[in-house]
Amino acid sequence: MSAEETSLNKISYIKDSLSSGTYLQISRMLNSLNPADIAHFIESSPPKDREFVWQILNKEIEGEVLIHLSDTLQKQFLKEMDAAEVAEVTGSLATDELADIIQRMPEAVIEEVLSSMSIQNRIRIEEVLAYPEDSAGGLMNTDVIAVRKNHTLDVVMRYLRMQGSIPESTNKIFVVNRKNDYLGSLNLNKLLISDLSLHVGDIYEKNDKAIMVNMNDSEVARAFEQDDLISAPVVDDHRKLVGRITIDDVVDVIREDADETLRQLSGLEEDTFSKTTVAIKSRALWLGLNLITAFIAASFIDIFKETIAQVVTLAVLMPIVASMGGVAATQTLTIMVRGMALGQIGRTNIAWLIRRETLVGLSNGILWAIVVGFVASWWFQNTLIAQIIAFAMIFNLLVGVLSGVFIPLLLKAINLDPGVGGTVIVTTITDVTGFVSFLGLASIFLL
Amino acid sequence: MSAEETSLNKISYIKDSLSSGTYLQISRMLNSLNPADIAHFIESSPPKDREFVWQILNKEIEGEVLIHLSDTLQKQFLKEMDAAEVAEVTGSLATDELADIIQRMPEAVIEEVLSSMSIQNRIRIEEVLAYPEDSAGGLMNTDVIAVRKNHTLDVVMRYLRMQGSIPESTNKIFVVNRKNDYLGSLNLNKLLISDLSLHVGDIYEKNDKAIMVNMNDSEVARAFEQDDLISAPVVDDHRKLVGRITIDDVVDVIREDADETLRQLSGLEEDTFSKTTVAIKSRALWLGLNLITAFIAASFIDIFKETIAQVVTLAVLMPIVASMGGVAATQTLTIMVRGMALGQIGRTNIAWLIRRETLVGLSNGILWAIVVGFVASWWFQNTLIAQIIAFAMIFNLLVGVLSGVFIPLLLKAINLDPGVGGTVIVTTITDVTGFVSFLGLASIFLL
Repeated sequence: MSAEETSLNKISYIKDSLSSGTYLQISRMLNSLNPADIAHFIESSPPKDREFVWQILNKEIEGEVLIHLSDTLQKQFLKEMDAAEVAEVTGSLATDELADIIQRMPEAVIEEVLSSMSIQNRIRIEEVLAYPEDSAGGLMNTDVIAVRKNHTLDVVMRYLRMQGSIPESTNKIFVVNRKNDYLGSLNLNKLLISDLSLHVGDIYEKNDKAIMVNMNDSEVARAFEQDDLISAPVVDDHRKLVGRITIDDVVDVIREDADETLRQLSGLEEDTFSKTTVAIKSRALWLGLNLITAFIAASFIDIFKETIAQVVTLAVLMPIVASMGGVAATQTLTIMVRGMALGQIGRTNIAWLIRRETLVGLSNGILWAIVVGFVASWWFQNTLIAQIIAFAMIFNLLVGVLSGVFIPLLLKAINLDPGVGGTVIVTTITDVTGFVSFLGLASIFLL
Repeated sequence: MSAEETSLNKISYIKDSLSSGTYLQISRMLNSLNPADIAHFIESSPPKDREFVWQILNKEIEGEVLIHLSDTLQKQFLKEMDAAEVAEVTGSLATDELADIIQRMPEAVIEEVLSSMSIQNRIRIEEVLAYPEDSAGGLMNTDVIAVRKNHTLDVVMRYLRMQGSIPESTNKIFVVNRKNDYLGSLNLNKLLISDLSLHVGDIYEKNDKAIMVNMNDSEVARAFEQDDLISAPVVDDHRKLVGRITIDDVVDVIREDADETLRQLSGLEEDTFSKTTVAIKSRALWLGLNLITAFIAASFIDIFKETIAQVVTLAVLMPIVASMGGVAATQTLTIMVRGMALGQIGRTNIAWLIRRETLVGLSNGILWAIVVGFVASWWFQNTLIAQIIAFAMIFNLLVGVLSGVFIPLLLKAINLDPGVGGTVIVTTITDVTGFVSFLGLASIFLL
C-alpha cells in the first residue's frame, strides 16, 4: 500500500525529527497525515512527545484525532481544554462521535459545550447521552434516514439527492410508519438497481433485525459479528426507531472486549506508554495484593518450620508443587474467563466443563506426579519423599483446576468481572494447598 | 431485539432437549436458527453434542454454518466429509468464504473439490489460494465490479442493474483503465445521489488507498480500523486490481489478533469445549515446560541447603521474593506483548520504555521492600533478615521488569512470536534470581 508506506515513512521521519527538533518540518508533515495515523503515533509515543505532538496539531483535525485515541488519552487531552475549545475542536464530528467524547469530559464542561451548540445538535447529543455509554443507546447515532412504505423509490431517490450526502457507513435506510414504529429496512444497493416506479413496500426487508436501545454493547458487537452487519437500526421498548449503529463503532467494542480478558487477568489498566508515575501506581496495587497473598502462603510454611529444619530437602522441592498447581489453575481460569466473555458458558454446559477440568487436572496430575516422583527419588535417593511430592502434586493440580473453574463463577455470582483478581486468588489457593499438602504429608510420614 | 431473544430461547430449548432427546423437535428448531447462531451453539457445546447437532443439520445450511465456526472445528467437520459432500455443502458460498474453508482441507480433497466446480469458480478460488492464508490475498474476494473513468454514471447504473444484485458489504466499486491498473473507487452512495449524466471520472475518489495483495492480515485489519473502511481494493505489485476485502472478513482477523496475545501468554491453543483428551495434551506441554523450569529453580535452592538448615525462616520467606519478581515480570511482559501486537513499539521508543520500566521496577521494588522488611522484622524479630529480604526484593523486581522488556524483544529477534513461552521464561528468571539473591545474601551475612 503505497499511501500507507508513505505515511509510515513520515511517522518514522517525525519520530526522528522530534529528537533533532526541526519544528516547522515536523508540524507540516504531522498535519499531512490522516487522523487515525496521528492518533496511532500519539499512542506510540512517550508522554512528553504526546504533549508536543498535540500542541503542534492543527485545530481542524484535533477532533478527528481525538475520536481515534483511547479513552484514557481522550480524557487527558480534554482535561486541558476549556468548553469553547472543546466546542470548536469537536464542531465537525458526527453525533455518536461527539457523544462518545463528551462522556469523557467533566460535568461542568459538558453543560457549557452543549449550550454552545445548535439546538438540533444539542437535542441529538442529549438523546444519546441519556443512555449508558456501554449500551446500544450510547453507541448509536441519531441521524437516521427514515422513509414510508407507500413512497415510490423515485421519491426516496429524490429525497436522498436533496440531502446532498449520505452519512458514512450507511448501507441501508429505515422504514417506519406515521407513528415512527420501526417496520424494516431498505438496502441502498437494492434501491440502486431497482425499478424506480416500485414502492418502498415492494422491496424493503420486513422485520430486518433491530437492536434494542438498552442492549449491552458486547451483545451488539456479537450481533454484528454473527450477521455480518454494516449498520443496524436501534429501537426503544415500544419499537420506535431511535437511531442506528454502524460497524466502525462496533469494531472498537470488539477490540476492547477482546482486550478486556487480558486486562482482567493481568490486572493492568494502563496504556503502553503511560507516564512512569501512572505505571508505578497501577502496578503497585497488583504487587501489594500479591504481597499479602504471598505472606499468607508464607504463614502456612511457617507452621511446618520444624519439619523443614529436620528435612531441608522439603524446602528445595516445595516450590515445585506450588508452581505446578498455579500453572494448572491459571490455564483453566484463562479458558473460563475467555469462554464467559464470548458468552459460551452457561447452565447447560457448566457441568460438562467441571467434569472435563477434573479429568484434565487428575490426568496431568498423575502424569507429572510420576515424573516428579522419579526425578525426586533419583535426586535425593529417598522414595518416601518422592511418594509424598507425587501425591501432593496430584492433589494440588486437582485443586488448581477446580479453583480455575469456580473462582470466575463465584466472582460473576457476586457481580464482579469474572477475571478480575482471578489470577491472584487462584495462585494463592494453589500456593497454600501446595505447601500445606506437601509439608503436611511430610510431617506425618517423614518424622 | 425480539428476533434475537427468540433465537436465544430456541437455543436454550435445544440445549434442554438434547438431554431429553425429542429428536424431531430439536431438528426443526435448530434448522430454523440463523447459521451464525447455530455455529455459536456448536462452539458452546461439549464434543458429543457438537457431533449430534452437525448430523441433524440440513445440508443446505451446513456451508453457512461452517464459515462461522472456528478453524479447529472447521477442520474437524471437514475431515469427516468426502469431496462430493464438501462440494455440495459449499456450493452456495462466496469465493473468499470457500477459499477460506478449502485451506482447511487435506490436499487430496482440495483437488477433487476444485475439479467438481465450474471453470469460472475454480479460477477464482485458485487465484485466492495462490496467496498465504494470513495475507490480504488470502482474505480477499475476487468478484470485483470495475468500471472505467469515461463511462457515464447512467451506464454504470444500467450495468449494475443488469448484474441483478450487488455483492454484500459492497459500498464502492472500482475504477480501472484498459490495462486493469487500479485508479480509484466510486462510492455507491455517491452514485445514488449524483446526476446520472456525469462521468465516473467526475465523481470517483482518485487514489483511494489500495491494499497490497501480500500485506499481512493484521496490517489489513489495522488499516480498516484506522480508516473506518467497509471494503477496500486489493492490488498486486504492478498496481493491477486483483480483488477486494470486506469488513466482515476483517472483523474475524481483529477478534483473532486480540485473542492471540492472550493465547501466546497463556500457552493455550484449544477452544472452550475441546475434547478432554485434546485438553489434557495441550495443557501437559505447558505444565511439562514449567516442571523443567521449576526443577531448575529448585536446583538453585539446593545449593543453599546448609544455610536453610541453619535458618529455617529463610524457607518461609523465600517464596515471597520469587513471587513478587514473577508478578512484576509478567506485568511488563504483558504490556510489551500487547504493545508489540498493536504495532506500537519500535526503534524510536524502546529506549524510553526500558527507562520507564527500570524506574517502575526500582520504585515498586523499594516501596514493597520497605513493607516486606518491616513485616519480616516484626514477624521474626530479626532486622538482618529483614534487610536481606528487602535488598533481594529490590534486585528481583528490577531483574523482573528487565526480563519483561527484553525477553519478547529477543524472541522477536529470533523470529518467534514475542509472547510464546514468555511467561515461563520470565518467571524462571525471577524464581532463580529471587532464590539465589535472597539465600545468597543470607549465606554471606547470616552465617
